[in-house]
This record gives sequence, structure tokens and C-alpha cells, in this order.
Amino acid sequence: MTDTSRYHVNGTLVPAADAAVSVRDRGFQYGDAAFETLRAYGGEVFEWDAHRERLERTCATLGMPGAVPEDLALRVAETLDANDLADAYVRVSVTRGVQPGRLTPAEAVDPSVVVLVEPLPRGGLDGESVWDGPAVVQSVKTRRTAPAALPPDAKTHNYLNGILARLELRRASTETYRPDEALMRDAEGYVAEGATSNLFFVDDGTLKTPAEGSLLPGVTRRVVLDLAGEESFPVETGRYTPDDVRGADEAFLTNTTWEVRPVARVDGIAVGGGPITRLLARLFDALVEERCY
Amino acid sequence: MTDTSRYHVNGTLVPAADAAVSVRDRGFQYGDAAFETLRAYGGEVFEWDAHRERLERTCATLGMPGAVPEDLALRVAETLDANDLADAYVRVSVTRGVQPGRLTPAEAVDPSVVVLVEPLPRGGLDGESVWDGPAVVQSVKTRRTAPAALPPDAKTHNYLNGILARLELRRASTETYRPDEALMRDAEGYVAEGATSNLFFVDDGTLKTPAEGSLLPGVTRRVVLDLAGEESFPVETGRYTPDDVRGADEAFLTNTTWEVRPVARVDGIAVGGGPITRLLARLFDALVEERCY
Repeated sequence: MTDTSRYHVNGTLVPAADAAVSVRDRGFQYGDAAFETLRAYGGEVFEWDAHRERLERTCATLGMPGAVPEDLALRVAETLDANDLADAYVRVSVTRGVQPGRLTPAEAVDPSVVVLVEPLPRGGLDGESVWDGPAVVQSVKTRRTAPAALPPDAKTHNYLNGILARLELRRASTETYRPDEALMRDAEGYVAEGATSNLFFVDDGTLKTPAEGSLLPGVTRRVVLDLAGEESFPVETGRYTPDDVRGADEAFLTNTTWEVRPVARVDGIAVGGGPITRLLARLFDALVEERCY
Repeated sequence: MTDTSRYHVNGTLVPAADAAVSVRDRGFQYGDAAFETLRAYGGEVFEWDAHRERLERTCATLGMPGAVPEDLALRVAETLDANDLADAYVRVSVTRGVQPGRLTPAEAVDPSVVVLVEPLPRGGLDGESVWDGPAVVQSVKTRRTAPAALPPDAKTHNYLNGILARLELRRASTETYRPDEALMRDAEGYVAEGATSNLFFVDDGTLKTPAEGSLLPGVTRRVVLDLAGEESFPVETGRYTPDDVRGADEAFLTNTTWEVRPVARVDGIAVGGGPITRLLARLFDALVEERCY
């Protein structure tokens, strides 16, 4: 954020330093809000439709269908323009706004809608990477919130579960060991995902990733599965243990910001990228190039 | 909130309409914040020490020990004064503030601290009730978040679990049936608590309430347990099923706002208050009178 940054708040572009929500906004008081993280490449938002659909689904899960404004794409475009950004990180939030009463939501919703952007280099295989090298992944004790408590496919402002996982990494860190993503298991002990990423691994030539159910099915995860399908790679979704991941031939993480990020180590054990990880990263890169430039 | 209401934000009293936090505040973006709900009676905050201690514990759980400002009691008193309120609802939030980076918290914390107040009549047995009659309680499918995902004794801005439970009540409502509190079970199916209240019931003269483990141990719950102990009531904490509650002789809910609130029905079955509920409500009322007036 610089002095000239501008964010979009409830339909208006405002200086970033003044971009604020009421302390009575339910997005603040209860994390009662949906959000999406997106990337713009060359001024184009990648996979806009998939992100918008998930935002609408999350709002429906939260009992506020229709809260996503019709002109959201325009608001994002205006924010990118106002900040003179073509390659950017974009965060869009839709909250239940301010309501009378306390915890019980009112049916009539006047949502707060926030768009913020930050420069993020194009990255890709030949560009400046958005991450500091392959991921160092560490199993944590914090378990993914169970579907019966909060549907895992809703992307909401209730993100403490992932924050607690990241805090465990801080406690596990030493001068020479700095894990930067958590391996989170579901209530039954099966691998779910990272705090902000989906996990893939390669075993005997098959690309494997945990099945939906206890994880946030990422847009990048979907794109990677589609790319693997187009290449006719054997793909399997299922239930896996941390041992399966530690014993894999290759592993990588996906999310909108990281795209395809190889895993260096899991619980200290070298796993690393490999030919399938490299090929998928290359295909992803080519897709971004084709769609956005 | 009226035109003259004022809230305390980061050490300053501001008009309520201007009381806001940055859209980059982690309390907004991730619900990365601790809070407490308190009541002031006759200008005195009831059980201040217990609430302050829990706020500090929650901040410690979130990896930001020491985030609660030393002068928080003064800020609350200033806010009550500025609004000319003696009997009030008070909400105090401490967030991790604005930080660089994304999800992983930085160690250096510059917390945002918000105090808001609203008029709330003294209530009590002879005053204007803060609730619209005994509670109508309905079991819901949404389960309490498991301790392994988020410690239940931390009171945070991640409140969607309770909101989803309340949304189930909305869907279950008809013109003649309007449940207003959810009976939430833990992952194993045992009764945990309401969305914003602890549950007690009376069975064969014994006062029973779910043991700690999967619930937020309320300050009012503690006070009621102490009062029951002083009266030498048989008290039991344990694991109970919804059937135990539906078959009870009496049942009531506790929280800071409701104090001791009788339960009319559970899943449509009449339970109701009774002599033990009435006596505990009277003892609670006397304690407020003794401490605050």
C-alpha cells in the first residue's frame, strides 16, 4: 500500500488509508463475510467466473444469496485502473453489513463490499517468483474445521483455524528450519490441505490430491486437475495419510497466489518437485499467457 | 446507536458513525481478534476481572499475549461516561491490527482496540426484561467447532459456527413456532451449549450443565455454579444428550446479556423454569444489586 493506493468500498474508490468498515459491521464483529483472492495478469482477472461463482456459493451458505453485487467485475476493473495495475493481487469481500440486534442475522442484507489490490509481479516460470523457493511443509496438530461445524467449501472471514496452524509453524521454527506451510488433517486424521493451499503429490506416476469433503476446493486446484486430465495423466482423488505425502515422489501446493509451488520437504523429509510438477507449472503458465496476454 | 453515541477506537472517543477499522485490519479480514461482551449496572462493569482474564487468555491462544491494553477498564469507563450510560451493554474487541504479508501473523502486534456501548436496562426480576420471555430452544445440525480446530474457550471474531446455527432456526420457524436459541452438540453428539449461551437443566433436584471441553465457559455460567455451590445444591457437570435436556424438570440458559433465562421448550417439548431456576435468578439479581448499586 502506498500513499496513492485506492480501494473500492461500497461502490466508491477511496484512498487506501481511509478505506474502512464500521466497527458494527458483522464482517468485523463476527467474521460474517465471504471473500475471494484473485490475480490479475496483464489487466485480466484469471478465472473470474470460477471465483465469482464460489463467492456467490459462500454467500448462499451464509444465508445471504444475492449479496454479491452485479457490477463486481466492474468494481475490480476500476480498482485496478485507479491503482494503475495490470499484474496484481486482488481481494474481494462481501459482508453481511451492519444490522440491528446481535448474533441472529436479519433477512434484509445491505452488504459491505470491499475490493483491495496490491502489485504482484506476473511471476510464472521465467518471471520474478511470488514465493521464496519451494515450500517447507510441516504437519500441525490443529485440525481442519469439520464440515458439520462450518462447510469447508465456504471461503469466509473466519480464518483463525488456518492462523492457528501457521502459529504452530512459528513455534516449530529454528534458525535453520523455517516451515512456511502447514499440513492440516481432517478430524479423522486424513490429509486435508495447507492453511492457504491445496496439496498434490505424485506416487508411481499418478497425480493424487485429497478428495473434497474437508477442504476448500481451490480454483487453481480445479485448473490443475483439468490440465492433468487434458494431458491424460492418471489422476486420483482420495483419502491420504501424512505418510503417503512424506513418501511421495513429488509434491506441490496450489493456490491463486502461488499457482503451482513445489514442496521441498514434508516434516523434514525431502520430497521435492519433479517432472510432473514442472510440466504442470509450465502448462499453467502457458494457460495464463494464452488467456491474459 | 444515536447521533450522539460515541465509541472508543484505538484510544480515542469518536462519533459512533465514524467508528471504523481499516479494511486491512486482520480483525476484519480473518476474524483475527478476541472480544468480550460485558454489562454495566449502575455504572459498574459486572465481573470485570473474569472478563479481562478471559480476554487475555483468548489473546494468548491467538499468539498475541499482552495485546490487551493496561488501561482497558479506563477506556470502558470513558465510553460509558461519554454516552451518559450507567446500565449498558459493552463490547470490547482486541484485534491483531494491520500487518504486512498475508495469513501468517507477524510477531510484532499493534492491536486495534474497540469499545462500543449500547443502553441496556438493568432488567433483573423486577425490571424491564432484556429478553422477550422464556427461550424456545431447537436442536440444530450445525455442530460446535471441535477443540482440535479452534479452542472453544477462546472468544473470537470467528463466530460463523453460531451464526449458521441461528440460520437453521430461521429456516425452522413458522408463524406459530419461533425458536430463538439453538441447542448445539459437539462432534460426538453430546450437548455443548447454545449459539451464545450456556445451558443448565435440573433433573431430580440436581443442577446439571455440560462439562468444559467443547464449549465457551461463560462468566455467568461460573457465577451460577458458584451460587449453586453456596446454596449447597447438588451440582453435576458431565456429558449429556438432547434427550436428557428434553426430559429435564427445569432448564435455563445463561449469558452476560440474558443473565438467567428460563427455557420454555426444547424441540417443541415443554420443559420450563421452576423453583431452582427462579431461586438462581433471584440470587443472581441480588449479587448484581450487592456488587453494583
